[in-house]
Amino acid sequence: VSKATCIVILQPVGRRVEVPAGTSLLDAARLAGVELVALCGGEGTCGACRLRPVEGRLSPLTRAEESELTPGDLSTGYRLACQAQVLGDVRVDIPPESLTAPQRLQLEGLEIPLELDPAVIPLEVEVPPPSLADLRADLTRLRDTLAGIGRAELHFSLETAASLPARLRASGWRLRLALRGDQVVAILPPGRGLFGLAVDIGTTKLAAYLVDLETGRTAAKIGAMNPQIAYGEDVISRITFANGHSDGAQTLQARLVEELNRMVGDLCAEAGVGREQVVEAVAVGNTAMHHLFTGLPVRQLGESPYVAAVAEAVEFPARQVGLDLAAGAIVYMPPNIAGYVGADHVAMLLGAGLGGVSQTTLALDIGTNTEISLFHQGRHLACSCASGPAFEGAHIKDGMRAAPGAIERVRLSGDVVQVHTIGGQPAVGICGSGILDTVAGLLKAGMLDGRGVLRGMHPRLQIKAGQAEFILVSAAESGTHRDIKVGRKDINEIQLAKAAIRTGIEILLADAGISASDIQSFIVAGAFGTYLDLESAVRIGMFPDLPRERFRQVGNAAGGGARLLLASTPQRAAADALARRVEYVELANDAGFMDVYVKALAFP
Amino acid sequence: VSKATCIVILQPVGRRVEVPAGTSLLDAARLAGVELVALCGGEGTCGACRLRPVEGRLSPLTRAEESELTPGDLSTGYRLACQAQVLGDVRVDIPPESLTAPQRLQLEGLEIPLELDPAVIPLEVEVPPPSLADLRADLTRLRDTLAGIGRAELHFSLETAASLPARLRASGWRLRLALRGDQVVAILPPGRGLFGLAVDIGTTKLAAYLVDLETGRTAAKIGAMNPQIAYGEDVISRITFANGHSDGAQTLQARLVEELNRMVGDLCAEAGVGREQVVEAVAVGNTAMHHLFTGLPVRQLGESPYVAAVAEAVEFPARQVGLDLAAGAIVYMPPNIAGYVGADHVAMLLGAGLGGVSQTTLALDIGTNTEISLFHQGRHLACSCASGPAFEGAHIKDGMRAAPGAIERVRLSGDVVQVHTIGGQPAVGICGSGILDTVAGLLKAGMLDGRGVLRGMHPRLQIKAGQAEFILVSAAESGTHRDIKVGRKDINEIQLAKAAIRTGIEILLADAGISASDIQSFIVAGAFGTYLDLESAVRIGMFPDLPRERFRQVGNAAGGGARLLLASTPQRAAADALARRVEYVELANDAGFMDVYVKALAFP
Repeated sequence: VSKATCIVILQPVGRRVEVPAGTSLLDAARLAGVELVALCGGEGTCGACRLRPVEGRLSPLTRAEESELTPGDLSTGYRLACQAQVLGDVRVDIPPESLTAPQRLQLEGLEIPLELDPAVIPLEVEVPPPSLADLRADLTRLRDTLAGIGRAELHFSLETAASLPARLRASGWRLRLALRGDQVVAILPPGRGLFGLAVDIGTTKLAAYLVDLETGRTAAKIGAMNPQIAYGEDVISRITFANGHSDGAQTLQARLVEELNRMVGDLCAEAGVGREQVVEAVAVGNTAMHHLFTGLPVRQLGESPYVAAVAEAVEFPARQVGLDLAAGAIVYMPPNIAGYVGADHVAMLLGAGLGGVSQTTLALDIGTNTEISLFHQGRHLACSCASGPAFEGAHIKDGMRAAPGAIERVRLSGDVVQVHTIGGQPAVGICGSGILDTVAGLLKAGMLDGRGVLRGMHPRLQIKAGQAEFILVSAAESGTHRDIKVGRKDINEIQLAKAAIRTGIEILLADAGISASDIQSFIVAGAFGTYLDLESAVRIGMFPDLPRERFRQVGNAAGGGARLLLASTPQRAAADALARRVEYVELANDAGFMDVYVKALAFP
Repeated sequence: VSKATCIVILQPVGRRVEVPAGTSLLDAARLAGVELVALCGGEGTCGACRLRPVEGRLSPLTRAEESELTPGDLSTGYRLACQAQVLGDVRVDIPPESLTAPQRLQLEGLEIPLELDPAVIPLEVEVPPPSLADLRADLTRLRDTLAGIGRAELHFSLETAASLPARLRASGWRLRLALRGDQVVAILPPGRGLFGLAVDIGTTKLAAYLVDLETGRTAAKIGAMNPQIAYGEDVISRITFANGHSDGAQTLQARLVEELNRMVGDLCAEAGVGREQVVEAVAVGNTAMHHLFTGLPVRQLGESPYVAAVAEAVEFPARQVGLDLAAGAIVYMPPNIAGYVGADHVAMLLGAGLGGVSQTTLALDIGTNTEISLFHQGRHLACSCASGPAFEGAHIKDGMRAAPGAIERVRLSGDVVQVHTIGGQPAVGICGSGILDTVAGLLKAGMLDGRGVLRGMHPRLQIKAGQAEFILVSAAESGTHRDIKVGRKDINEIQLAKAAIRTGIEILLADAGISASDIQSFIVAGAFGTYLDLESAVRIGMFPDLPRERFRQVGNAAGGGARLLLASTPQRAAADALARRVEYVELANDAGFMDVYVKALAFP
């Protein structure tokens, strides 16, 4: 018997919605606010909206599904959301690649299971007020009270003590102290909650999370662009700016901290929390972002042999860098591995659960620099490769960041090109995953040779001034004044990027004495890593052709790692252990580098 | 046999000069750059230039000396510098009261004997440079070197580590580290000396000293006005400003630190030292100056029951308050005793050598607030009295600070008035010691009654609009357009000030159950305390009439104490011991206060 109204539970995003029986899963997801990729507009011809039912009754398989889904997918029960209609309460599991980019990025909002063990814990005290007969200083009076309960060892910094007189008088001589070991980092009114700030300082993007240190719950999160972009698009140009201007480094630090303070304000407002309740922070970033944030010099990062000033984990007062949190809040940053493998990579490895990994595992975070780690038989090798900003849409003629209107998914079948834009908006450009799909599609269609030259006949292929271009969306289609197209230079940029990444992978494998097929788990982290299409990445040769179930796209694992390090201090020892054990591989030192790279430049 | 050329050694200022035989000691001192008081212009009629020969041959006593020196002075060998001529190499001891004010203040330049044991010591290391085969971070590389010499425990703050990359590369990978316990506070080129900064933050004046931490020697010293004066003359008006303006406290702190940074620049320039070599600082000041400097709130200092926010000794990074010294330099401040007995009083007691005093000793530092300590039979009582700014020349009609042209010494004999101005400049006003002498002289001459009313007949006493005024220097005498005179209101200001001080002394004595005559040692500290005339202070009843040898004028003992605390860390434990043992006496709580005060208001 079919129900009139069915409950649809969408995993792992954790949304539920009631819909009339017969509604397609695609429509149900849309009603629940979960946007699935539907290149074909729900006609069952693109296969992009695949998902896996976990329980409940659905309409039978359609012919479209039988044709679009692979035998593997069919045998494991995959369906197309646009085809399957709900006939009862159902629970479905949506793989990340079926979500649109912004939806996929929401994955980072998922709670990470952790052993809650924060650096800062609360202690409530009541202090007698002064009188003409008791003229002890406020701090002495509090210390004496603490000594009475066996806490004479507690330290107060001047900044923390400075808040004591007003707090005592405003809260009736009752306090909640935030203790970090034997250091008092904040003096709060009684009962006030303790929160922590986790920040991922990307070269391009900032992500910040407010975490309740008494529950481990993420109370609010926010993203923003790194305002340092105004002073240089990538790490090298930031270093050049810092070195070339007398106040360059201070300017970059000030702009960053200004933006972080604004983000903290928004986070606190959203969670209904005061800044003085933010008693601890964890920040991660690549080595250059780490140094620019902490005020360490970057000159030696820009000169051979490119060494970090400081690699070990650091702790410093938030006030020291101008971060406006609780008076005595400390910022912890995990260790950097090398000049171009930073604290964010360590956080990513922890966030992806690789702290004590035993399987042969490759993990990478694709960005302007791509950091790669290979774990094999107790060894941990890491390297960095200069993959450039092409996957962030830069250096691509019609490229753009992953924002509404960006073509994020492309499918070529015969003369037909299907595109999906972020937010379903009219197309305005191509983001990283879109150009990746395009190149992969052109390769699959035999329209690209190994060197990246466009060839063959296609209604969308045009030659203009001797340059071949493939039109994804014509001016007529988008209703704008210009075509959105991909040319040889764009394809070459992708070649350079994918070759850099594949070279790093191959050199690590060679150093470990294994081949790609030995990789048991292949972890792809970061925003682009999350919304790229694995098939496309394999097709262009960026990733080795492993069985697909060995791949795992883990979203912003660096941000997740930062939250882990914030809520669970034993993870900080794990970070140290990771950084201590790692063998850093300098690709420039590798005798075989050029051979591997030249080979990787070609398309398979 | 007389020598043609004689060497004159002047103690304790430590100057020496060669003069022809027959030169007067007054002229010899002048040639040596030591200015003695000579009210009579060297005619042997004022007795102000008395000093005590220690060894060597002088001309015989003159009749002038027999008439001006007391029998006690004569029996202990005192001479008048203007009368005694050198007949061979001589060594003379100059009592502070015979020096002019600026000369007397130079006493603070005297070296204090101390056990050299600074908080910061040097360590030289050489570090291997990085290469493609050795990509360790700079700090890791240094740490590994230190571990090799058994110093793996050393800590580096971020600020200190930030200077490492440039320093390593500029100084050929050789360094001199400044160690404070296991904390590295500065990274210097090899062989560079370590210096410390001692600062006395007075409500009115600042004094700063640069001390060589490897010799204990004071390398340079400088004085300046406290720029906070622009925001209020005394402590109460500063607190009012801090509380009444949103950025009030920050403004006061910023102005002060700005001036201190300027002074440090001058000190460093004078000593040929870089700021980064100033690796430790000690600052002292009253509780309000302490709180405004450190960024502690002062609101509760201005509201009954007037308690300090923090009384214990504090240590904090110089950078935290904006003080521009070595990257990791720490500022130490000794404990405050109470809301109105601050860290400067603790430093004064140490500077006067009272850390472990066993004699019954009274020590006071006269200022707008006068802090008084009484040591008796193992007890240490302390209080603060609001003596006001009259002794700094404020609230006195023709008053001025002790600057060139200020009348600093006055002597009435019959109808004649002798005055001495600072620097021998034409008189422009009266400073604290001058008005004190004037009041004492009028009392001695019987021209003042107990209530402070001017009476009697004197060519310099004039009645104008019903007000009696005593003319010290007439317009004709000074060649200016106005008389410099003292009136009843001025005399009343001095009455209020001396009564406050005497009341504090008497209440401490009563609390200890002793009387003034039990005081074995009476220590007078501070600038005014150093250049006041003890006879005058006793005559007006500000000080008890003790045998004069029990008095000791110790100059800026707070500054001396700050230098002690800088060069000899065991003194910091002595400061804690002093502050722990002290019994603070709140005069406002004393039942007998008003009776004692009313009695003290009258002149003896």
